[in-house]
Amino acid sequence: MRLPAPIRDPVISPRYTGVMNIPDQLAGETTGGNEVTLPRVARASVRPVQTLDLLTQREMASLANADASLHELFRRCALAILNTDGYVDDARKVYEAYADFDLQVIPEPRGLKLELFNAPGEAFVDGKMIEGIRHHLFSALRDIVYTEHKLAEQQTFDLSNPEGVTDAVFRILRNANVVRSNVQPRLVVCWGGHSISRVEYDYSKTVGYSLGLRGFDICTGCGPGAMKGPMKGAAIAHAKQLSSNTRYVGLSEPGIIAAESPNAIVNELVILPDIEKRLEAFVRVAHGILVFPGGVGTAEEIMFLLGIKMHPANAHIELPLIFTGPRESADYFAQIDRFLRDCLGEEVSEHYKIINADPAAVARTMKSSIKALRRQRIEQNESFSYSWTLHIPEELQQTFLPTHDNMAALALHRDQPAHQLVAELRRAFSGIVVGNVKDFGVRAVEAHGPYQLHGEGEVIDGLAALLEGFVRDGRMKIDPASYRPCFEVAGRP
Amino acid sequence: MRLPAPIRDPVISPRYTGVMNIPDQLAGETTGGNEVTLPRVARASVRPVQTLDLLTQREMASLANADASLHELFRRCALAILNTDGYVDDARKVYEAYADFDLQVIPEPRGLKLELFNAPGEAFVDGKMIEGIRHHLFSALRDIVYTEHKLAEQQTFDLSNPEGVTDAVFRILRNANVVRSNVQPRLVVCWGGHSISRVEYDYSKTVGYSLGLRGFDICTGCGPGAMKGPMKGAAIAHAKQLSSNTRYVGLSEPGIIAAESPNAIVNELVILPDIEKRLEAFVRVAHGILVFPGGVGTAEEIMFLLGIKMHPANAHIELPLIFTGPRESADYFAQIDRFLRDCLGEEVSEHYKIINADPAAVARTMKSSIKALRRQRIEQNESFSYSWTLHIPEELQQTFLPTHDNMAALALHRDQPAHQLVAELRRAFSGIVVGNVKDFGVRAVEAHGPYQLHGEGEVIDGLAALLEGFVRDGRMKIDPASYRPCFEVAGRP
Amino acid sequence: MRLPAPIRDPVISPRYTGVMNIPDQLAGETTGGNEVTLPRVARASVRPVQTLDLLTQREMASLANADASLHELFRRCALAILNTDGYVDDARKVYEAYADFDLQVIPEPRGLKLELFNAPGEAFVDGKMIEGIRHHLFSALRDIVYTEHKLAEQQTFDLSNPEGVTDAVFRILRNANVVRSNVQPRLVVCWGGHSISRVEYDYSKTVGYSLGLRGFDICTGCGPGAMKGPMKGAAIAHAKQLSSNTRYVGLSEPGIIAAESPNAIVNELVILPDIEKRLEAFVRVAHGILVFPGGVGTAEEIMFLLGIKMHPANAHIELPLIFTGPRESADYFAQIDRFLRDCLGEEVSEHYKIINADPAAVARTMKSSIKALRRQRIEQNESFSYSWTLHIPEELQQTFLPTHDNMAALALHRDQPAHQLVAELRRAFSGIVVGNVKDFGVRAVEAHGPYQLHGEGEVIDGLAALLEGFVRDGRMKIDPASYRPCFEVAGRP
Amino acid sequence: MRLPAPIRDPVISPRYTGVMNIPDQLAGETTGGNEVTLPRVARASVRPVQTLDLLTQREMASLANADASLHELFRRCALAILNTDGYVDDARKVYEAYADFDLQVIPEPRGLKLELFNAPGEAFVDGKMIEGIRHHLFSALRDIVYTEHKLAEQQTFDLSNPEGVTDAVFRILRNANVVRSNVQPRLVVCWGGHSISRVEYDYSKTVGYSLGLRGFDICTGCGPGAMKGPMKGAAIAHAKQLSSNTRYVGLSEPGIIAAESPNAIVNELVILPDIEKRLEAFVRVAHGILVFPGGVGTAEEIMFLLGIKMHPANAHIELPLIFTGPRESADYFAQIDRFLRDCLGEEVSEHYKIINADPAAVARTMKSSIKALRRQRIEQNESFSYSWTLHIPEELQQTFLPTHDNMAALALHRDQPAHQLVAELRRAFSGIVVGNVKDFGVRAVEAHGPYQLHGEGEVIDGLAALLEGFVRDGRMKIDPASYRPCFEVAGRP
Repeated sequence: MRLPAPIRDPVISPRYTGVMNIPDQLAGETTGGNEVTLPRVARASVRPVQTLDLLTQREMASLANADASLHELFRRCALAILNTDGYVDDARKVYEAYADFDLQVIPEPRGLKLELFNAPGEAFVDGKMIEGIRHHLFSALRDIVYTEHKLAEQQTFDLSNPEGVTDAVFRILRNANVVRSNVQPRLVVCWGGHSISRVEYDYSKTVGYSLGLRGFDICTGCGPGAMKGPMKGAAIAHAKQLSSNTRYVGLSEPGIIAAESPNAIVNELVILPDIEKRLEAFVRVAHGILVFPGGVGTAEEIMFLLGIKMHPANAHIELPLIFTGPRESADYFAQIDRFLRDCLGEEVSEHYKIINADPAAVARTMKSSIKALRRQRIEQNESFSYSWTLHIPEELQQTFLPTHDNMAALALHRDQPAHQLVAELRRAFSGIVVGNVKDFGVRAVEAHGPYQLHGEGEVIDGLAALLEGFVRDGRMKIDPASYRPCFEVAGRP
Repeated sequence: MRLPAPIRDPVISPRYTGVMNIPDQLAGETTGGNEVTLPRVARASVRPVQTLDLLTQREMASLANADASLHELFRRCALAILNTDGYVDDARKVYEAYADFDLQVIPEPRGLKLELFNAPGEAFVDGKMIEGIRHHLFSALRDIVYTEHKLAEQQTFDLSNPEGVTDAVFRILRNANVVRSNVQPRLVVCWGGHSISRVEYDYSKTVGYSLGLRGFDICTGCGPGAMKGPMKGAAIAHAKQLSSNTRYVGLSEPGIIAAESPNAIVNELVILPDIEKRLEAFVRVAHGILVFPGGVGTAEEIMFLLGIKMHPANAHIELPLIFTGPRESADYFAQIDRFLRDCLGEEVSEHYKIINADPAAVARTMKSSIKALRRQRIEQNESFSYSWTLHIPEELQQTFLPTHDNMAALALHRDQPAHQLVAELRRAFSGIVVGNVKDFGVRAVEAHGPYQLHGEGEVIDGLAALLEGFVRDGRMKIDPASYRPCFEVAGRP
Repeated sequence: MRLPAPIRDPVISPRYTGVMNIPDQLAGETTGGNEVTLPRVARASVRPVQTLDLLTQREMASLANADASLHELFRRCALAILNTDGYVDDARKVYEAYADFDLQVIPEPRGLKLELFNAPGEAFVDGKMIEGIRHHLFSALRDIVYTEHKLAEQQTFDLSNPEGVTDAVFRILRNANVVRSNVQPRLVVCWGGHSISRVEYDYSKTVGYSLGLRGFDICTGCGPGAMKGPMKGAAIAHAKQLSSNTRYVGLSEPGIIAAESPNAIVNELVILPDIEKRLEAFVRVAHGILVFPGGVGTAEEIMFLLGIKMHPANAHIELPLIFTGPRESADYFAQIDRFLRDCLGEEVSEHYKIINADPAAVARTMKSSIKALRRQRIEQNESFSYSWTLHIPEELQQTFLPTHDNMAALALHRDQPAHQLVAELRRAFSGIVVGNVKDFGVRAVEAHGPYQLHGEGEVIDGLAALLEGFVRDGRMKIDPASYRPCFEVAGRP
Repeated sequence: MRLPAPIRDPVISPRYTGVMNIPDQLAGETTGGNEVTLPRVARASVRPVQTLDLLTQREMASLANADASLHELFRRCALAILNTDGYVDDARKVYEAYADFDLQVIPEPRGLKLELFNAPGEAFVDGKMIEGIRHHLFSALRDIVYTEHKLAEQQTFDLSNPEGVTDAVFRILRNANVVRSNVQPRLVVCWGGHSISRVEYDYSKTVGYSLGLRGFDICTGCGPGAMKGPMKGAAIAHAKQLSSNTRYVGLSEPGIIAAESPNAIVNELVILPDIEKRLEAFVRVAHGILVFPGGVGTAEEIMFLLGIKMHPANAHIELPLIFTGPRESADYFAQIDRFLRDCLGEEVSEHYKIINADPAAVARTMKSSIKALRRQRIEQNESFSYSWTLHIPEELQQTFLPTHDNMAALALHRDQPAHQLVAELRRAFSGIVVGNVKDFGVRAVEAHGPYQLHGEGEVIDGLAALLEGFVRDGRMKIDPASYRPCFEVAGRP
């Protein structure tokens, strides 16, 4: 798990961008004059509790004397974790504000300890680190050590083919004790925007509550918003049900963790090495997936899921997928639904259910769907905790770079299998967002003109309409008045 | 634990009144035309989990064939518990709405089961009772069986003297496993209004959070408002600290439980037989007491506490007492503080601390005070879980009936030890509230004129000023415009 | 639970006798010149762990300032427990050897502590009491406090009728947490001699092993011999099966505990107040009963069991009863079987199975019988942990005093229901043993001639033959050469 | 972890030989006419419980389709484990008797299952496998999978240098959860003969009991004799102390496991890949080492330990070493002690204590020594569960092949550092035993004459005397009458 290399050009998903190019930008920058002075703890020592297996001397050495990049990687993950309840949640600002934060791994009689310098004060109570944060801190250390060793030093992980990636993701999760042999299928993955409206947040909480009352555990990307609401709701329900051994699984990755600090409810935190493996981890550990309203990132994720679900190799595999939001947000899924049906045909709607404004119905539907999944897994001798048989097409696994050439090469027509079109759409979608929002994208469009998209006008117009809707609803942080599409149908006069 | 006898005349504390005289009033009454139809479960069976020791055949028989009053007592407690999250929280309305609710105790191979009829629907999820509610239900059964047996049948409890009462309270708590031998001093009792403003509620939550972060458990009267806020805050903090074995103790009694349904966080519920034993239970299990703003009931409780703390027999006993509220409610304690100093002298202020708008300071102060208490208990060979040595004066243990004669007999002057005056004040206070708010009190005052209070004008005027302040601040549910004091200084022209 | 009163005359079962009249004999006696010097610990403090609920101040006071008899009762039980692995197992010698042993109950912040003086050294390791012994010590304290309070002070226990006794036994067991609501039927009661041959001891171990492999728990009288063997065997099997929550229940009483010190495997020790309640406890908690070879006491117990099983009120109640011994001891049960069939008819054999020299068959038979019992308990809504419905006839519950008159009044003929004859036989049996072995019995027979037994010659001759067999096999500690029966058929020339 | 290659000639340690060359010998052999028919279970399925983490599909595939050698390796370990209480304990006979035993790894929804064919009957009770055996079975699977993957496929383990070996041993133990971060130093490694006299076995039990009473856990090679006695004794003591989380660690390896089936008490079983790594595991996890009397193998192990302890790099490292036996075996250590002092000087005796016939003294000495070790580990920031700093000289880690040339090359003189001489002595010792007992050794000596040893006559004569003593005491299974040394001082006339 190396530090992300300096990124010269575009990145995949707009939601994940901000963080990735910080290191370069931070170099030589000053924090400016209007710095907030945040409370910090000058020096503190913490020890792991069972979350970290003993390290070998080699592993310890590689941490202690880590080259700059590994050390910096852990430093930044640690900072994100310590900042969990912080008042600052813009990744760059966090890094700036705590530029003097540092840490050191120190071998100990029974394991190791961490020495922290200038750590965010809110992670401590009367000088002692909050237990849950300590837990997260050592989860991060565990994953970074594990991945680093397997991936970088030992070439154990063979990432050159899909099976190798699937194997690596499994082993990272197994090492984190997230896949284990004694679990029943009851882990619901919740996706959706991390900066959503209050009414959407409250709704996600109620849905989590309804799930928790029925014994479901929650897995999210572990930031705020729709990542936190369902966990919080489930936690209250679990308390009422006196449930023990409840799971609040957070899957993160180094590029996202600072922007989406693990919330305090997460009791199983895993740091996957990158976005793709994180997405794969989500779909393979999920026993059901819920999507809450979000922004464009969420729409893109929906297309990712449909790309998997519609693939012929997955034809008969149960993987419940429900879109749900409060009455006030019904439009969001209505727009997406319309677009999907137009482009992919009515059959697409068999792959998801839309249930708005009814948390109990969502939970009950999930319950009966997961029952079917459980039956199927038993019949097919499939693991409950990791879906090995699910096929993830390579075009979904791979990063897409939205250059003008790549955009022009997309095949946006219905004269191909639906699962291929949806994968193309996901790429188009991703590129368009970059062209509208990201600096380098905006500049590229200014320099070279709008992206020229090839395919059917109806498909491309549908895309345009969908984006316009998002802009209009304030889901893209673009002023509707000044919005202009960054693409056009190639050859259209 | 017999059903409270039909109450002809006054009751002690206005907060507890509403419930006590329901049985008579309900007889022959109809629920009127505007009844809400509430969801209910026609029939359900539940079994205890470890919370209820096996009953003997005699105990079982006494429950199954309970005389009407014991059965009705349990029926009503059960209803209150099942209604925990109900939309109705007026006791009388609850009883009306669920007039057809009933239950039956049925012997079973391994213990017993409860058969429920027409139970409130919100206690169930997909037809199965919520675990926490089940737990509460059998706690109530346990306490009613235990108290009934000891108190009524066997004359085991000798309630004719203070030591006998103290012994009985201990044994009820021991039977409920609330006093036990392996606990450290960290139980903070929280008092305050159960219908308070949002800002006060949120504040009580934050204080609970600060206490929870420092490892404190919470004990309250187990209703809403200041009873629930601190528990909820502490629960979040405990989760962050990964604390296990955390305690949320709710102490209730049959006359109050319907108006103050145990909230879902409570994981140790005890039903004491009456108000006095409940108050005694609070002060003997407390390692520290926090008072949040409330109404007149809260003010009365403060005087109850000071009556104990100022008693010479308790001179050197540590029992931390802190008054705390948000900035917006600073007046509440300021008024009380002024009145107390005026009547009882400046020394009274040594018995409490007022810390407004600073949850962390409250928690830290509590922490250091409880450290001192712990030291003292060890030195004095005193139990950590039940303060045997604390002396509760009989005048505080006894019910006060605010007739005109009794009111006139109060000695409201400073020419007596402060701890006696404060006990007199508590009674005066209690009576005045009845004269202003309760039906029978209001009618008595209309018939016989204002209560004639004897003593010093300054003391009585202070009382008047305090009440006026409460009326003005909306803490007494009396319109300030129409408020007229129900008492006067005897002999003053 | 008062100290047993000085016994002027006979006692019921020879096995229990030795201990009962020690106190009188000890008075004024010297320990003689050949005293063994045993290692002892001059002074030690021990605290309970969870086994003892907090005591009320009254309970504490009654222990601390106990009148001589209660204090002496606890002192002697404690001594028996501390002597668990002692080299001395004759009760009287134990009391003599540790005449200077004493203890004191001392209130503590979190419960209480015991101060011990001159305690047997083998209960300690490097000055610290062995945990299991500490556990037993506080179990004894718990039971003595509980019984004393209920029985003596408060008149809670109504022992004037069978139901009252059954209720009292239940409550003592419930207070000791031996009857509880979460257990499955798998407690096998094992009876048999406490001083048996090596081959019989080893056999009892193997049977315990076979039971343990199949998940059964063991309950015995908690001394050595057939009390210890099955527990030891089961413990090894439980370890192999990685079983947790395994139970080794020891039921004792003050008169027997010194002669049958609880062995170290016992993890639930209960001190019942006397022999009769101990016997009742055995049959009510048993899910199956195994009898190993023993002496006359064991034979008497068999008749006690048959008196219950053959009673018409118990006609259809499942209570598996198996007699088992090694090949070498087959004669023991053959003799008893023959006698029973002769006296009570062939039908008696339906009430027990004899399986010699086949531990696995014993365990498998027990398993299938207990399965039937389980089914029956569920059908009949009977508790798994205490058989309320089993009827124990009063003639079995009552103590029999074998005077010449009482012996002559026995009706030893087959012209009555079998269950009545077996109860008479039990008494005859008990009396004959006293006449042969006990001082006062031997003297009485010398003075007044042999007991005159009325009834059928065949029955009485059968009794005589059975006893002769026991003498011959060395099971009565009487030299066969000098043995002369102490009874004759009344009127036989 | 490949199957040991067919061994044509010498083997490392005489104790381990029998098993290693079975595969070849078995080929084409018939089991003869006098075969015992052993009970077996034709077909059985077992599933792991938590002991086996989920396998990846690759790991599963490698097991399911294992090449012959990996499958055979696991088959034989499994057989040894299933035969734990078998009446046959000669490895070869076990393999013969169960030649038709086989097993198969089958993927399952939640992990995997094992299908067994013709498994030894004593591993089952009423058709269900004994839990402890099931646990061992999956421990073996876990270790074989882990080692195979790391060692063979991935070249993760770098065994070309001592640090790599130490790292590999650590990781195998960590994967088996034997080294973990929450343990206190209390693991006593017990060595000694696995076929010892009854009095020695009973003594080892008593020592285990004394250790167990003081809270020590036991680690042995997990066979019978001195491997089982201390565990059994400790188990009884732990039960008396109500200790939970007690550890009975068994370290085995494929070449030894059939001859030394893990006894049923072992609750943490690890299969190291070979003898050397097993020895390293012992000394690195030990907090103290006890040596009981044994044969020549034990003597050789003592020299191995002294080779480590006397090495200058370990000069100040605490590692308690006690030799202990019953009074009857005092000679064994006396002879060794004398030899060591003669060869290595009086200082050697500082590295061990000899305490005969006093289990309590052994345990108390161990206790105080381990206290010192604990202090040192804290001071030196050394792990409690794995001694990283202990230096194991390469000459001890390496296999010695006792050819005539190699024997002649040994330097058996005192003109070198003691720690070098003791390493030479260990080799000489090992070779001499082969020359006396092993077929190929005996033949080689017949062909080429006695080994010619170079060095000091006193040293070599001491060696001769020591061996003669062992022969005389029946510790070498050689008839004293026919014994003739297989070596001589080179050049001595």
